[in-house]
Amino acid sequence: MSNSLFLALSGGVGGAKLALGLAHALPQEQLRIIVNTGDDFEHLGLHISPDLDTVMYTLAGVANPETGWGRADESWNFLESLGQIGAENWFRLGDRDLAVHVERTQRLRAGESLSEVTARLCTALNLHVPIIPMSDFRVRTIVQTEGGELDFQHYFVRERCAPQVTGFRFEGAESAQPSPAFLATLSDPRLRALLLCPSNPFVSVDPILAIPEVTTRLAARSFPIVAVSPIVGGQAVKGPLGKMLGERGLPCDSVQIARYYKERGLLDGFIFDETDKKLEPEIAALGVKTFATRTVMTTLSDRTRLARETIAFAEKIA
Amino acid sequence: MSNSLFLALSGGVGGAKLALGLAHALPQEQLRIIVNTGDDFEHLGLHISPDLDTVMYTLAGVANPETGWGRADESWNFLESLGQIGAENWFRLGDRDLAVHVERTQRLRAGESLSEVTARLCTALNLHVPIIPMSDFRVRTIVQTEGGELDFQHYFVRERCAPQVTGFRFEGAESAQPSPAFLATLSDPRLRALLLCPSNPFVSVDPILAIPEVTTRLAARSFPIVAVSPIVGGQAVKGPLGKMLGERGLPCDSVQIARYYKERGLLDGFIFDETDKKLEPEIAALGVKTFATRTVMTTLSDRTRLARETIAFAEKIA
Repeated sequence: MSNSLFLALSGGVGGAKLALGLAHALPQEQLRIIVNTGDDFEHLGLHISPDLDTVMYTLAGVANPETGWGRADESWNFLESLGQIGAENWFRLGDRDLAVHVERTQRLRAGESLSEVTARLCTALNLHVPIIPMSDFRVRTIVQTEGGELDFQHYFVRERCAPQVTGFRFEGAESAQPSPAFLATLSDPRLRALLLCPSNPFVSVDPILAIPEVTTRLAARSFPIVAVSPIVGGQAVKGPLGKMLGERGLPCDSVQIARYYKERGLLDGFIFDETDKKLEPEIAALGVKTFATRTVMTTLSDRTRLARETIAFAEKIA
Repeated sequence: MSNSLFLALSGGVGGAKLALGLAHALPQEQLRIIVNTGDDFEHLGLHISPDLDTVMYTLAGVANPETGWGRADESWNFLESLGQIGAENWFRLGDRDLAVHVERTQRLRAGESLSEVTARLCTALNLHVPIIPMSDFRVRTIVQTEGGELDFQHYFVRERCAPQVTGFRFEGAESAQPSPAFLATLSDPRLRALLLCPSNPFVSVDPILAIPEVTTRLAARSFPIVAVSPIVGGQAVKGPLGKMLGERGLPCDSVQIARYYKERGLLDGFIFDETDKKLEPEIAALGVKTFATRTVMTTLSDRTRLARETIAFAEKIA
């Protein structure tokens, strides 16, 4: 299917792993990676796009292999110095990483769109797979908690996900447009499948799906949506997803993820971990095609294999 | 003279050395250091104040002892990373140093004045001597060269002072006001002397003197102006001063510095290096009191001694 096009929606660390696999499994002209910008924020006067950076660094091979976010061989002298002058230092900005934030911020201030700046950064990093922000508009994930609303990074980093979550809203989403390349891909007759990377549905995928034009296009789609579960053996592979499910009174398992997407008509195929094979009947009962495989991605070869399996599964149900 | 007040005008590295000596020689309530901001510039969207930072770092004991500018124990990963993403990296911004630029920039954008931001940074660095920007207005030193006009940092850092200089202008100076603390000190009846640190007269001291209210106050002054020569034995201690004098067709010696200030009525006492003792008659002939001593400041004790001698000389001629 050399003329097919695959569109992947990704958040940060977990999504970036599959995105990297997809970049190895597909020729660059057959892949578009749309990245969540709902957790972007302004900090110290800098525009920070954590998920875009994680995907970009991961695909460029300069990501920190320990954390999954930030740069490899990083140093923290800027952050230490911020502390010395009494400035806010709760968000960990590495010295190398900072170059991207400073350059992005000045280009946005000069009037470039986030899409343009991202394309420029990718070119500079010698990346050929299109990494595309979900929107050039300002959309901000707000976490609703028992103690009030929190900006996502305040919840996630400053408060270390401690507050009990009651819900989410995506400020600005209602009036946001998808980025031009995202919109063009959604209209592309070659589009074969939409892939939901193993990212947190509530805070990594939902901000993308909350853009009205995206909702409309996906409701009228002629291609399948295939999700890869971010949960393995009753645990979220990374981040606060398990805690968030618990706070909704839901068990932390792949069935919940499949149901969450399917209830809104946004799921046709679901890939989950082979160790959760017992859940297959329950997922299939939702009216979703299923595929169980090893979804834990430790090595590059894990990522590429899972990517190939995801593509093959999507092709099959398309 | 415990009630006396001394006002020092300083540029970067050379001036900061004497400023440090003055901070050791005088109680903090008797000293105000006014710093050139004509070589401030916007770079990568950051507001950079090189001379303020040099004076601040020097007095806080965190300056790089090798270069005189920037921070000690500095790393350069931000700059390296800027290069990797194709961003401008000709101006050397260290990782630790960057914290000050980022914090200053965001506070200026939030509406604080440069004086307020500087006071806040000094407090955070545990500095008690007032370090005061010459103005909260935007004044920019423009270097006029054979090849056209250059912003100061472009001339100084990017072009490494290579272009032949034909003159200078201080953009914005005509409509600038001195900073509130500078103006208050100029009006303070306790003001005993104005000290011109051994900085470049053309690009470090002149931007300060170019502010109309400063010019007016100094013309009507009741206190002496004492300058310390930045030239020793026919060579500028640092920077392009010698080259600039040569390009004006003038020899590089202390007489030129004394004459340059005196011709505008801005000099009463002049301190120069003892190795240039032979120049004393020529300087005295300008109608200026003279004092020859060792002006090369290698150690802290050199700085403090020269500061004490400068104060004593100023007291004597006041």
